[in-house]
Amino acid sequence: MSSTSGVRSVLVANRGEIALRVIRACRDLGLRAVAVYSDADASAAHVRHADAAVHLGKSSASKSYLNVEALLGAVRSSGADAVHPGYGFLSENAGFARAVADAGVTWVGPSGDVIERMGDKATARATAEAAGVPVVPGSGVVTSTDEAVAAAAEVGYPVLVKASAGGGGRGIRPAGDDDELRRVVDEARREASSAFGSDAVYVERALQHPKHIEVQVLADTHGNVVHVGERDCSLQRRRQKLLEEAPAPGLDPALRERICTAAADLAREVGYVGAGTVEFLVEDGEFFFIEMNTRIQVEHPVSELVTGVDLVAEQLRIAGGEALSVDQSDVVVRGAAVEFRVNAEDPDEDFLPSPGEITALELPGGPGVRVDTALAVGDVIPPFYDSMVAKLAVWGPDRATALARARRALAEYRVEGVPTTLGLHRRLVDEPALVAGDHDITTLEAFLAQSS
Amino acid sequence: MSSTSGVRSVLVANRGEIALRVIRACRDLGLRAVAVYSDADASAAHVRHADAAVHLGKSSASKSYLNVEALLGAVRSSGADAVHPGYGFLSENAGFARAVADAGVTWVGPSGDVIERMGDKATARATAEAAGVPVVPGSGVVTSTDEAVAAAAEVGYPVLVKASAGGGGRGIRPAGDDDELRRVVDEARREASSAFGSDAVYVERALQHPKHIEVQVLADTHGNVVHVGERDCSLQRRRQKLLEEAPAPGLDPALRERICTAAADLAREVGYVGAGTVEFLVEDGEFFFIEMNTRIQVEHPVSELVTGVDLVAEQLRIAGGEALSVDQSDVVVRGAAVEFRVNAEDPDEDFLPSPGEITALELPGGPGVRVDTALAVGDVIPPFYDSMVAKLAVWGPDRATALARARRALAEYRVEGVPTTLGLHRRLVDEPALVAGDHDITTLEAFLAQSS
Repeated sequence: MSSTSGVRSVLVANRGEIALRVIRACRDLGLRAVAVYSDADASAAHVRHADAAVHLGKSSASKSYLNVEALLGAVRSSGADAVHPGYGFLSENAGFARAVADAGVTWVGPSGDVIERMGDKATARATAEAAGVPVVPGSGVVTSTDEAVAAAAEVGYPVLVKASAGGGGRGIRPAGDDDELRRVVDEARREASSAFGSDAVYVERALQHPKHIEVQVLADTHGNVVHVGERDCSLQRRRQKLLEEAPAPGLDPALRERICTAAADLAREVGYVGAGTVEFLVEDGEFFFIEMNTRIQVEHPVSELVTGVDLVAEQLRIAGGEALSVDQSDVVVRGAAVEFRVNAEDPDEDFLPSPGEITALELPGGPGVRVDTALAVGDVIPPFYDSMVAKLAVWGPDRATALARARRALAEYRVEGVPTTLGLHRRLVDEPALVAGDHDITTLEAFLAQSS
Repeated sequence: MSSTSGVRSVLVANRGEIALRVIRACRDLGLRAVAVYSDADASAAHVRHADAAVHLGKSSASKSYLNVEALLGAVRSSGADAVHPGYGFLSENAGFARAVADAGVTWVGPSGDVIERMGDKATARATAEAAGVPVVPGSGVVTSTDEAVAAAAEVGYPVLVKASAGGGGRGIRPAGDDDELRRVVDEARREASSAFGSDAVYVERALQHPKHIEVQVLADTHGNVVHVGERDCSLQRRRQKLLEEAPAPGLDPALRERICTAAADLAREVGYVGAGTVEFLVEDGEFFFIEMNTRIQVEHPVSELVTGVDLVAEQLRIAGGEALSVDQSDVVVRGAAVEFRVNAEDPDEDFLPSPGEITALELPGGPGVRVDTALAVGDVIPPFYDSMVAKLAVWGPDRATALARARRALAEYRVEGVPTTLGLHRRLVDEPALVAGDHDITTLEAFLAQSS
C-alpha cells in the first residue's frame, strides 16, 4: 500500500489501546508513528510499538495528554507532519485542532470550526434540522425556569434538561412534570457552568425505551461522503457504553437506510472531513439525532469487522488529501460483530476503577476474534486515566454465531492482577433481551440492578 | 446457533493448535468437547480448554495420539458420540475411521473407503481422470526398471518416481533421463516399501516452476457439494508448506473457475462427505490434479478469513447429518488472507526442531489479525510431535494491505525461550517474488539457499 500522499509522520496524541490502534494503522500505511507519554506511561505498549516517543510531563492528564503546549512541542521536536488525537483527551478540542493547523501541521479530523459547531449541542441540533434530519423534540437554549417550563409544555413530558455544551452524559437531569422541572433547571445550569464553562441548557423530550443507534461516516476533502453502516450501542451504564454491535439487530431495512442516509446528509451539510459518528435515538420506528462525535469512536472495530473498511487508515488517507478508498456501493455488511469493553473496574464495587499490575494474561484467539489492547503481562494500569484497558470484538457470519463466539472468547480471556468487567460480560452475553436483540438504553441498568 | 442434530459430544483425537481449533468450534456450536492427552501434554492448552480430558498413554505419538486402542477406549469412557481427527496423526487412517464407525460413533470426515481410495495415489489419479479432472502426465504402477523407462518415454522427461501409497513428499525421486531413471527406480521402490508398506511406484512428468494451488471443498450427506475457493501454498521447503494465502494471486479468473469446478466435480465423483482439499499444480495456464487430502488442512484459516465460512463448524454440522450452511452462491471471496506457520525450529540450523519452554509471549492483535495457538507463557513444547506451534493469519481488503498487516503483526509477535520461524517470515514477507505474487514451488528453497 502506498503511503498517504501528504502525510509521512504521525504524532499520536493519546495513550493506551487507541494509541496502539493508530500506530498499527501507520505501520499498515508505511507511515512513521510518534508516540507521546507521561511519566506513568514511560514503558507503555504504545511507546514500545512506536518509531519514536516524546515525553510530555507528569502523570496527571492535565500535565501530559491534555497539555497542549507540551504536545505542540512534541510535534515540533519529532518532526511529525500530522497529529492523530484518538478519542477522549483533546480529540474534540477545537482550540487544539486549530493550534495544530496553525503550526502548519495536518490535523487528522475535521476543522476546529466543524468540531466547535458539532460540539455545541444546540448548534448541532439546529444544523441537523437544517439538513432535514429529525431531532428529539426540544427547545432552544432556555435562560430561566419559566422559559424551561414553557418549553416543556411544547415538547411534552417527561423531559431532560441538558447542558448545551455537554457530553458524555454529564449535566443531564430528567423531569416528569412542572414541579420537578422547576427544581432541576437551576441545578442543571449551575452544573453545566462548572463542568463546561457555560450555563446554557435546553429542554428535550425524554424517550422511554429508545435504542442508541449511531452511524459511521467518512468524508474526504474531494467532497465524497459515505456511511459505513450503523452500530447499536444501547447497552450503557450511566450513559457509558459497555457493549456495541454492528449491524443493529432488529432494525427495519427501510428505517436503517433512512438513518444512514440522514447521517451522510448531515456530514455533507456541515462540510465534514474525516471519520465521524452521528448518534441517534430510535423508538417506535422513528429516529432522532442526538449528537455527532467528530473523531474515531471506541467502538469502531465492529464496523471494521462487518465491512472490511479500515476506518483509522481512512482517517489518515483523508488527512493526506487522498480520496476515500471506498464508495458507497463498496460498503457491504457481512455477518455481525460485537465488542466488549474490558474496563479495569470492579462491577461488584459499583464499577470502582481498579488500577494495578497485570500479573497474568491469556488472550482469546481463533476464528472471529479480534483483541485491541495495549496491556502485556507485568504492565501496570495507572490510576490517572480512563479505566478501559482492552476491547474484545468478535465476528460471526450471523449474530447468533457472533454471540456464541463471544461466549467462547470471553471464557478464554484471562486477566489477573486487577478486577475487570470480563465477568460481567460473561453474564451479560446471555441476557435474554440482548440475545433477542430487543435491548434498549435501559436494559443494562435494569440488568445490573437485578443481578446486584 | 443450534447444536448439530446428530452430534452432541466430540472427542478431539489430536493435540496442539488444531485440537484447540476444534474445541473452539465445538464451543461455538454448543457441543461438548473431549480432549485426549499424552503424558507430555497433561497440562496443555487443549486439555485446559476442553470440557473433559482422557489420558492416552506415554508421550511418544505411538503410545498416545497414534494409539488406536487407547483412543477407542477414550471414546467409550467419555461417552463421546463423534471423533474429530484434526490433521496429521490418524486423520487419514482408513482403519481408524472404520474402527470409530464400527464402534457406533460418528467419524468427522469421509468414510474409510473414501480415505483409502484417495490415499492411494494411483487410485486417486485414476479417480480424477474418471471425473474429467486433468492429472500430471504419468503412468500406472510400474513393477520394473524397463517398465519405468517405457513410461518415461511416454510422459516425457524430466520425471518424478513416486510411491503410490506415499504422502508428505516422502518416497519421491527425480530423474532427468533414462540413465538417471534406471538408477533411482529400485531405490524408490525399496524406500516406498519401507516407508509405506508397499513398493508400488509410478512415473510422473516433473513440472519446472508450477504453483501449488489447492481447492477447499465441503460436501454433506444430502448430496450438496461446494468449493470454498482456492489457496496458493507454493511456498514450501522440502514439500512442507510454510506460508499460504487465499485467493491465489495472479490466477486468471477463468482458470480459477475451472480449477474450483474440477475440485467440486472430483468430490462428487468419489461421493465425498466432509471437508477436503483437492491439490493441483498449475503451470502455463494448465492445471493438474496431484492429490486429495481427506481432512481439514493446517492452512484452512485463510479460506475462513476471505469467505467467512467456518470450515470446522461445517465439518461438525455435516457429521451431524445437517445440510451445508452455505450454497455455492454464498461463497464470496472478500479481500485477501495470508497465513504464516510458526514452527519451533531454528532456520539458522537447517530448521532443527527446538523444543523448550516458552518464557515470554506477546501476541499480535488489532485489525485483520488472527492467531491460532495452543501455547501460553510457561508451557513447554515437547520434543515428541510436530514442531508447528502457532499460526498467524492476517486479512486485508486487498493483498497489499494483507501483506502490510502481516509485516506489522510479525513485528509485534514475540516468542522467547525457543527459536522459531518468525524471523524467517519477517524476511520472507519482503521477498520480491512473493510481493509480486509470482512465486512458485521453487521460490522458498531458492530464497533459503540465497539467504543462508
